[in-house]
Amino acid sequence: MQENKPELYTCLSPSLLSLYDVDKSIVVIIDVLRATSTIATALYNGAKSIIPVDSVAECIRIGKQIDSITAGERDGKVAEGLEHGNSPFEYPREFIEGRTLVLTTTNGTKLLHMALDRNAKGVITGSFPNLSAVCDYLLGQNQNVILGCAAWKNRVNIEDTLFAGAVIKRIGKHFSINCDSSQMALATYKEAKPDLYKFMKTKEASHYKRLTGFGLEKDIRYCLTEDGANIPVVYEDGKLIAG
Amino acid sequence: MQENKPELYTCLSPSLLSLYDVDKSIVVIIDVLRATSTIATALYNGAKSIIPVDSVAECIRIGKQIDSITAGERDGKVAEGLEHGNSPFEYPREFIEGRTLVLTTTNGTKLLHMALDRNAKGVITGSFPNLSAVCDYLLGQNQNVILGCAAWKNRVNIEDTLFAGAVIKRIGKHFSINCDSSQMALATYKEAKPDLYKFMKTKEASHYKRLTGFGLEKDIRYCLTEDGANIPVVYEDGKLIAG
Repeated sequence: MQENKPELYTCLSPSLLSLYDVDKSIVVIIDVLRATSTIATALYNGAKSIIPVDSVAECIRIGKQIDSITAGERDGKVAEGLEHGNSPFEYPREFIEGRTLVLTTTNGTKLLHMALDRNAKGVITGSFPNLSAVCDYLLGQNQNVILGCAAWKNRVNIEDTLFAGAVIKRIGKHFSINCDSSQMALATYKEAKPDLYKFMKTKEASHYKRLTGFGLEKDIRYCLTEDGANIPVVYEDGKLIAG
Repeated sequence: MQENKPELYTCLSPSLLSLYDVDKSIVVIIDVLRATSTIATALYNGAKSIIPVDSVAECIRIGKQIDSITAGERDGKVAEGLEHGNSPFEYPREFIEGRTLVLTTTNGTKLLHMALDRNAKGVITGSFPNLSAVCDYLLGQNQNVILGCAAWKNRVNIEDTLFAGAVIKRIGKHFSINCDSSQMALATYKEAKPDLYKFMKTKEASHYKRLTGFGLEKDIRYCLTEDGANIPVVYEDGKLIAG
């Protein structure tokens, strides 16, 4: 007998989000390199909240209004007018604890706002550093799930897909999955699982090449490692907080 | 030293086509179950040409104007007003040789027209039955390539992605591939390669389930088998012809 399980879908690009029933689902925003990994890390290290914004100008504007740290990069450098970058290593406990971070990202923030505009039942962020927490959260909710890959300017990317595959590998059996993208994500993750970093390198993943061009191998390794900042991250009232 | 190879991309859904430089590329229309497999088969068996149209009404209209066979299905049955269905087994040589087929398909035809609207340098169709011919054709052209998956109502599907992966496995080294979708297609194909049919069945691919619901296992097996109708299929002046 078919159990009445909630449904799970993987949306490989923001351009495809309109194909899914966002208003009946919890959407997991996945931007592995590096936005959602850095967000999990900052909150794990005690940040009060993180305000995701989509432009440097907005980041500066909010930074002037409230007591906060502004952060964001463009082309691998701290954006002009902001104080910090996108690396998870910039946010250790001694720096970030109790503080609010205003973070500008492009792909992840765009998808997050699209999910909100479509009245998602809930929005959380996911990354390898908080993989277990994401899985536990989703199991606890017993709702339909959309694993939303932020991608790169709408182009499908490997690392976000791998994270979707990792979630499905862990908790897929608790969901009804009638979604070829999810099966492909799982197949790709299974091939990559023995060494995600090596897989990214061997496959010459486009983002891997961009970031290693900036000398960020250490960031990539951290962002592909499970449970280094294992805390659920939930969007509430304009902010990402520890769930 | 980096060779000056042409570029190859995989576009997993018509919704993503705008992200690629269609006007600088040959686009391979991939609609494995079953449009492009049936097209290759009919041409291999001597059909004069195939006119792909996007609606039953258009199919009937053209069928009245020219000496032709009209074909198309909706929900697994021959559409009302048309003569034949979408199965490759309906088009043996003794039936189709020398004749024109007007075929209505949804996903494949839509993508084909999108590629034409964007001034593709060339448009061909691809399927496992003509895999080798597609690869040889692309190598001979020495142009940039977009492997265009027709998908299912814009949702990514496994079978079209597998065909993209099969092409990349065969001839990828002759192209510069800076495209994560291509790497994912290749990874998925590698996992599936020992038995594509079993992979589709095990993964409960959405289209596999739809078609087996109509009793079409034999069609699926044929459509996943390499080189059963090994002929290049090229779009020219409104028609698909043997290249």
